[in-house]
Amino acid sequence: MGETKTQATSKKESSLVRDASAALTPSFLFDLDGTLVDCVYQHVLAWREALEQAGIQLAVWRIHRRIGMSGGLFVNALLRETKRDISAEEGDQLRRLHAEAYARKTKEIRPLPGALDLLRYLSEMGVPYAIATSGRMESAGPMLELLRLDPRVPVVTRDQVQFAKPNPDLFLAAAERLNVSISDCVVVGDSVWDLLAARRARALGVGLLSGELVQRGRVSQRPESNLLSGH
Amino acid sequence: MGETKTQATSKKESSLVRDASAALTPSFLFDLDGTLVDCVYQHVLAWREALEQAGIQLAVWRIHRRIGMSGGLFVNALLRETKRDISAEEGDQLRRLHAEAYARKTKEIRPLPGALDLLRYLSEMGVPYAIATSGRMESAGPMLELLRLDPRVPVVTRDQVQFAKPNPDLFLAAAERLNVSISDCVVVGDSVWDLLAARRARALGVGLLSGELVQRGRVSQRPESNLLSGH
Repeated sequence: MGETKTQATSKKESSLVRDASAALTPSFLFDLDGTLVDCVYQHVLAWREALEQAGIQLAVWRIHRRIGMSGGLFVNALLRETKRDISAEEGDQLRRLHAEAYARKTKEIRPLPGALDLLRYLSEMGVPYAIATSGRMESAGPMLELLRLDPRVPVVTRDQVQFAKPNPDLFLAAAERLNVSISDCVVVGDSVWDLLAARRARALGVGLLSGELVQRGRVSQRPESNLLSGH
Repeated sequence: MGETKTQATSKKESSLVRDASAALTPSFLFDLDGTLVDCVYQHVLAWREALEQAGIQLAVWRIHRRIGMSGGLFVNALLRETKRDISAEEGDQLRRLHAEAYARKTKEIRPLPGALDLLRYLSEMGVPYAIATSGRMESAGPMLELLRLDPRVPVVTRDQVQFAKPNPDLFLAAAERLNVSISDCVVVGDSVWDLLAARRARALGVGLLSGELVQRGRVSQRPESNLLSGH
């Protein structure tokens, strides 16, 4: 009898655990650049080239610490570093020069170690995920190819929302495309802007060490804080 | 009379100040990569290419946080990240692959903003300075050309000393070439290894934000800590 009772209890507990676990299974919303793809340094150097072509000299580390913002905010922040104002036209030209310089560097770019394994694992486990990037499809396209992304995975780019990070729009749109509640989503990103956007969207934000957060000194550099194996 | 006395005092004080200032005029020992030349990101990406050619996948940020060590220590530290051992031969091959990849990127590299002005100002003021780099002459040569360095400025490279930074040898040799006491020298560098080497040499170390210190989170990122104008 004791045994039977134990079995009954176990079965009940196990069923409770399964239910709880089903309710708690999150969906993942991934940032792209610097989170799944190791392209931050190429972005930084492409901005240096673009700025130089526009007659602006700026040290590379000053560019790096602004990376992760959306294009518009980023250009304005960079130009505050140089104490210059630019017109909307000049800003557009800078973004075009950057896109051209970045395209020339695409062949050097690789997925972050572990990223392909992680995405494959999530797919195998049936865990929903989407990509939400401040980049435009023009730059994001080659990165998505690197990740060999299943075409069914939703991808939201800067072209599809009104405001980029740190506004929550990109992550909200990605959750909608997955047909899940944003409060059941985990946002994974490497920049302060990802985590600000996650908080504004009321999702749980997880910061990686692979990119801009280390630069900003906003997170510790202890290996055990690093969530993706191999990152 | 009052006026005369004041003038006499002023003259005496002014002469004292001059003497003290002459005794206190330091010489400067500059690190090269990341301190005078904005080449750290190109070094990092050249190491990524070299490692990939040797069959080793490593995230760019993991490479960056080891930059500034001498070649030998650096390769060992990188390989600890991958939990691999390599032979002396494989280490030499990695360094050769890095030098080749770096040479391909030289045309993208610029002096740090303000560096040329600073060196010109020191020359005009008759303040002695030298360069002490953990790099070998093969990689340093093109960087020295970028700085349009007066050929009379002493340059000590890794080829000329037994131990590189964080050992003090490079800075001790540079002070000797200037014919000044190391304790009258200010060491200016961007990496923890520069500052460790400065301390071991008993020179005053000054850390810049332009390179590896920001990555390591060892210094604050307040602009006012930044000593070289424009950096």
